[in-house]
Amino acid sequence: MSDRVVLAYSGGLDTSVGIGWLKDATGKEVVAMAIDVGQEGEDMEDIRQRALACGAVEAVVIDARDEFANDYIVPAIKANGLYQKRYPLVSALSRPIIAKYLAQTAKELGADSIAHGCTGMGNDQVRFEAAVAALAPDLLCIAPIRDLALTRDKALEYAAKHNLPIAQSKKSPYSVDQNVWGRAVETGFLEDPWNAPIEDIYTYTADPSVPREATEITITFTQGVPTAIDGKAVTPLQAVVLLNKLAGAQGVGRIDMVEDRLVGIKSREVYESPAGITLINAHEELENLTIERDLARYKRRVEAEWAELVYDGLWFSGLKRSLDVFINDTQKYVSGEVRVKLHGGQAVITGRRSDQSLYDFDLATYDTGGTFDQSQAKGFIEIWSLPSKISARRDQATQG
Amino acid sequence: MSDRVVLAYSGGLDTSVGIGWLKDATGKEVVAMAIDVGQEGEDMEDIRQRALACGAVEAVVIDARDEFANDYIVPAIKANGLYQKRYPLVSALSRPIIAKYLAQTAKELGADSIAHGCTGMGNDQVRFEAAVAALAPDLLCIAPIRDLALTRDKALEYAAKHNLPIAQSKKSPYSVDQNVWGRAVETGFLEDPWNAPIEDIYTYTADPSVPREATEITITFTQGVPTAIDGKAVTPLQAVVLLNKLAGAQGVGRIDMVEDRLVGIKSREVYESPAGITLINAHEELENLTIERDLARYKRRVEAEWAELVYDGLWFSGLKRSLDVFINDTQKYVSGEVRVKLHGGQAVITGRRSDQSLYDFDLATYDTGGTFDQSQAKGFIEIWSLPSKISARRDQATQG
Amino acid sequence: MSDRVVLAYSGGLDTSVGIGWLKDATGKEVVAMAIDVGQEGEDMEDIRQRALACGAVEAVVIDARDEFANDYIVPAIKANGLYQKRYPLVSALSRPIIAKYLAQTAKELGADSIAHGCTGMGNDQVRFEAAVAALAPDLLCIAPIRDLALTRDKALEYAAKHNLPIAQSKKSPYSVDQNVWGRAVETGFLEDPWNAPIEDIYTYTADPSVPREATEITITFTQGVPTAIDGKAVTPLQAVVLLNKLAGAQGVGRIDMVEDRLVGIKSREVYESPAGITLINAHEELENLTIERDLARYKRRVEAEWAELVYDGLWFSGLKRSLDVFINDTQKYVSGEVRVKLHGGQAVITGRRSDQSLYDFDLATYDTGGTFDQSQAKGFIEIWSLPSKISARRDQATQG
Amino acid sequence: MSDRVVLAYSGGLDTSVGIGWLKDATGKEVVAMAIDVGQEGEDMEDIRQRALACGAVEAVVIDARDEFANDYIVPAIKANGLYQKRYPLVSALSRPIIAKYLAQTAKELGADSIAHGCTGMGNDQVRFEAAVAALAPDLLCIAPIRDLALTRDKALEYAAKHNLPIAQSKKSPYSVDQNVWGRAVETGFLEDPWNAPIEDIYTYTADPSVPREATEITITFTQGVPTAIDGKAVTPLQAVVLLNKLAGAQGVGRIDMVEDRLVGIKSREVYESPAGITLINAHEELENLTIERDLARYKRRVEAEWAELVYDGLWFSGLKRSLDVFINDTQKYVSGEVRVKLHGGQAVITGRRSDQSLYDFDLATYDTGGTFDQSQAKGFIEIWSLPSKISARRDQATQG
Repeated sequence: MSDRVVLAYSGGLDTSVGIGWLKDATGKEVVAMAIDVGQEGEDMEDIRQRALACGAVEAVVIDARDEFANDYIVPAIKANGLYQKRYPLVSALSRPIIAKYLAQTAKELGADSIAHGCTGMGNDQVRFEAAVAALAPDLLCIAPIRDLALTRDKALEYAAKHNLPIAQSKKSPYSVDQNVWGRAVETGFLEDPWNAPIEDIYTYTADPSVPREATEITITFTQGVPTAIDGKAVTPLQAVVLLNKLAGAQGVGRIDMVEDRLVGIKSREVYESPAGITLINAHEELENLTIERDLARYKRRVEAEWAELVYDGLWFSGLKRSLDVFINDTQKYVSGEVRVKLHGGQAVITGRRSDQSLYDFDLATYDTGGTFDQSQAKGFIEIWSLPSKISARRDQATQG
Repeated sequence: MSDRVVLAYSGGLDTSVGIGWLKDATGKEVVAMAIDVGQEGEDMEDIRQRALACGAVEAVVIDARDEFANDYIVPAIKANGLYQKRYPLVSALSRPIIAKYLAQTAKELGADSIAHGCTGMGNDQVRFEAAVAALAPDLLCIAPIRDLALTRDKALEYAAKHNLPIAQSKKSPYSVDQNVWGRAVETGFLEDPWNAPIEDIYTYTADPSVPREATEITITFTQGVPTAIDGKAVTPLQAVVLLNKLAGAQGVGRIDMVEDRLVGIKSREVYESPAGITLINAHEELENLTIERDLARYKRRVEAEWAELVYDGLWFSGLKRSLDVFINDTQKYVSGEVRVKLHGGQAVITGRRSDQSLYDFDLATYDTGGTFDQSQAKGFIEIWSLPSKISARRDQATQG
Repeated sequence: MSDRVVLAYSGGLDTSVGIGWLKDATGKEVVAMAIDVGQEGEDMEDIRQRALACGAVEAVVIDARDEFANDYIVPAIKANGLYQKRYPLVSALSRPIIAKYLAQTAKELGADSIAHGCTGMGNDQVRFEAAVAALAPDLLCIAPIRDLALTRDKALEYAAKHNLPIAQSKKSPYSVDQNVWGRAVETGFLEDPWNAPIEDIYTYTADPSVPREATEITITFTQGVPTAIDGKAVTPLQAVVLLNKLAGAQGVGRIDMVEDRLVGIKSREVYESPAGITLINAHEELENLTIERDLARYKRRVEAEWAELVYDGLWFSGLKRSLDVFINDTQKYVSGEVRVKLHGGQAVITGRRSDQSLYDFDLATYDTGGTFDQSQAKGFIEIWSLPSKISARRDQATQG
Repeated sequence: MSDRVVLAYSGGLDTSVGIGWLKDATGKEVVAMAIDVGQEGEDMEDIRQRALACGAVEAVVIDARDEFANDYIVPAIKANGLYQKRYPLVSALSRPIIAKYLAQTAKELGADSIAHGCTGMGNDQVRFEAAVAALAPDLLCIAPIRDLALTRDKALEYAAKHNLPIAQSKKSPYSVDQNVWGRAVETGFLEDPWNAPIEDIYTYTADPSVPREATEITITFTQGVPTAIDGKAVTPLQAVVLLNKLAGAQGVGRIDMVEDRLVGIKSREVYESPAGITLINAHEELENLTIERDLARYKRRVEAEWAELVYDGLWFSGLKRSLDVFINDTQKYVSGEVRVKLHGGQAVITGRRSDQSLYDFDLATYDTGGTFDQSQAKGFIEIWSLPSKISARRDQATQG
């Protein structure tokens, strides 16, 4: 058995105190690992130093922003990934990449365990541990906050007693998780789902009700991946960062919903995801132009399944991986441009075009020059209606 | 064989001329039937008189507005009925009720055939004929525009020659179908899906980009049916009419999409449905509060199926009817209030509450007084992850 | 708090010893409840007396055979309920009815807890506790074998020490659960899924490889429910009992499979269900004759979902109940007769007929007198193929 | 415009006469193309000569047996392809490969049209034409039997008048389509679905009710493909041929069902597919051993969709192709051996094993040495049941 544990470290109170707790409870050396998934805020080196100051034997910082965009956000765009048709899976996407680096760091640094700072009421504990189970099934997962039933008060007390370098002068009323794909906010008064959100809780999005000029942009997709904005080539990460700015300035991407957690309870959640909502809207509409009807209809069902699996922490599961293979195959022709008007909190598609378009002007036009052979419709309808017709005869005979 | 045919009559050029065409082509007497499904515009009595003037042997006018709201729109609300996640099935809902009255009128007035004015390129021909097949399988369906390959020019010529009382002084550039649930607009320049819509095409919705004060309303649902607005009891029809006014004034409910028609082609469609989008948004969120997770997840799949069936003209099919039974059963507890802010083209839910809520504050709160037993999570996650863990061991052994 | 617990009592070693264990561990009086679901074997009064002799303060015996057939087996027939396409849900159907009586008895006799004798590795613990949670959410569930980690050896020791009246002279090598719907057998050598079953493990079915005369029967269904066999009216229970005899004598209904347990592991299972396999086969084929294509196709998906929910212990869940409503609605016309040849381990359908048949001889015949209008097919195929044709043009242009 | 048409030629009466009809009706030269998909019967060179004698300008014979097995049957095995859970898609699999060679031959020999001998009542016309539409969208499809409403009597008359070399001395009462994957039989008395099949109609299978010794075989699969039988390496074609012999001799693979045709009618069908039923049974059970639960459950839904698409003639459609990609991905670990006992019309799996097995003896065993941590179950069940428990409280409060 190794005597090391790798902790997913955020720099905040809970995981800072967690370093000491883990050491006390397990006797293991604690390696702190912090990942940059575009959450911004603090400098990563400051976070690293704090981990050491809090007692970590080693502290690792990883810039995973491009990988996060390429390997986690891009699949979500291809899948039009919205849980319950609304939530763009902000935290659900970041947990698997953090888990991947926890497992990798544990292997590299000779740890036999990983740890995270989640409570036992949420989805993230499942996402961390299920991902680790699928990547490194022999690693042990430790969740001190949950398993030792630690509370905020106990954490503050511990930090004070051990003189930990944690600036906790005034407690923010908001509990936040954020990354480049979006932001989740929780706070006491929002626990009543009848209470409306207030402007103060938002940081990625401006107030959509303030009058301002609309912004019009054109997003280019290549096989489902955003590759240019207004004609300028971008990486996926750059696309997301730029759209957060442009769409966020127009108040696009606010979500307020009652959500079904994997652990069986309903919760009220408020999110911001300006780039997420914009990109998924645009991508889905480009699919409407370039994917065949039956494939598109089926893909919408697969997308619902995909979003639920990702929400439920099964990113690395066999089913999720095979669904990704299906989804990737559907993206062969999803290339083209979508024009989006950002305004008043909305990302409205106003145009779409593609060299791989299945829209056939000659078939679709009602003009006399159209090529659709209308006489075929009669036979089609007869056979299309035949099951209904036959059963209508039966039903009427039965009831008559 | 009877010598009568009942024609679905709109009062417009095509069906006015259709009266004569039908007579010429079949030798049958033509009964004109016009239905009020809230399309507004012309006085129904004027339409009736015009039918007679155009040669109909009888002309029937039916006010089906409440029935349309109760028996067609309400099921669509319960089903959160959006084809391709966007289109609230405006015309798709009205065709079955018209077909029902075609069949009923044919029976009452001794006709052996029904007729409609659809072309062979669209969905509505299928919706009419499939509905009639399911209701009166022995009626013959005639589609003069389609089957005789009639064009607008021929219609104008015929109308002039026979001196039909049709005001066709200036041709509107728009082809419109509308009812109380919404409005569909087609016109030449929109056939290029890259062209943006212009303000001129909209009549149910004001320009959402004009600065104005937001409107806040509270919608009450009882078992999935809208029953009050701002505390004042309404019928479904009244709810739709009032919300068209309130949400339309805020520009809510515009839809611009590439659509997959049943006849196998893609078309670009622009719709307005202020009440539709508002009610479906609100209803779906109330379901999030009151329906169990697994049932809600499954219902979302059923909804997609339902919308496709209705879009595809199978309103009266066996599958559609059994899905309705399922959906109705899910609405037992979908009662409560949803607060909606109408502004800038959006209907944003800002609160929801219900005596039948499944949201349990004591379970959901992170406060120390919460009742969720966090220690259960550990066992849950272990078993939840077990299939991934077992297959990870297998996969690694296989690859190793 | 009450001081009573109701134990699901089988009369076997584990639950007999469980009476004492429960008393020791909880201090509560133990009420033993045994249910007759057609498992045969011991006399129910003997079981009752044994419970009292083992220390139960009360012992209740319930004959639930008809209710089990009417309310649990009949829905399974209507749903063609086969988990993984094979397992007729033998134990999965009996657990909810036992749980229902546990909850009811607890209420009647003033207990605040229920108990069962399941281990922690199987599905039945989930089925019991999830059913109780859905029926009596405030009852506590106790599982002494699992939670106290009790083993067979400890049970034997306890029984000897307390002189419990348990005939355990020679240990059967088989662990069996059975009821009127079938029988599940587990035993050590079958834990290797490569080992073939031996004749000795079967009791509901004769060796199918022994030459014998075939048995031919006709089963009548009325709205999905078996109501007569060979023209003689039967209750559902009588149908099952009679078919167990007739089909079992021909070796029908043996199942040998690797099964995915809810708790995340695979297990090898051997079942017998002569009536189950016969009735489901016959019922499904009658549906082929009487249910419209699209409804039938959709119902097959619903059936898979239904079987998984029931297997997973969610009999009383909201989704399962709404699926039942859907399934019931599909059975309106599933009335008629199916002729089955029982022989060599197979229940082969050789004929089916119904007054509600959708089979239309005049349409289906290739004879010259047939009424199918073949000319419609051309238009149908053109439109049916149009999406493929349009995308083929696109694909070839793209690749070209 | 070209003046050639390629006809799918079987050597039988209809397509022999069709050569002349096509010439008469279209003025085009007729190229006859016959494909060997393992239908056996006549020598292919005899068929070729007959085509020429009947007036074909060219006659092409193609041995497609291995391609048929590798590219059409193998995907069906991987998909456990059974329409309505029973029909192994015998004709549905051969039509696309014939269509592919029709399109290819047309291109090579400069034809602008293809032709087939199907009537307008069946599925095969759709399968041919939809496949051609997806492969060569600009080819014209001609169906003389259907479009000219030709009958058998007219064909006989034409053959006599033109002295065509067709041995039609005694008319077989059976209409048969067969290939190496199976055989479909139609005949007048079977059009009444209450009539039982008679032994005389079967040729691939011996009477299963005749007593004989069982045959036991072991089938090896490698990533879903049958690669050895009883340890001897085989190609897919060899596997199918050998299993037809072995399983056919035991009467395995007879199917008698009422089927839902794509053209909207129900028909009664009788099939034989000894290798098909044996291979699908064995393959599916090997999946039970080697595929994770959630992936397996989802794949079963995909399989139903796959079978319907193939049945409905959409082999080359976008959705079918993307489903194949999904299915292929699931087969990575479906390698191992399945032992099958062939007897009395049944192919019974008696053992399965795999180096990639997910069956974990140590977890599954009830022995005291097992490694399953039963204490986790309690937490799992609590959270698994929580939605039911919460809604039970709500429901009871509402009803109370």
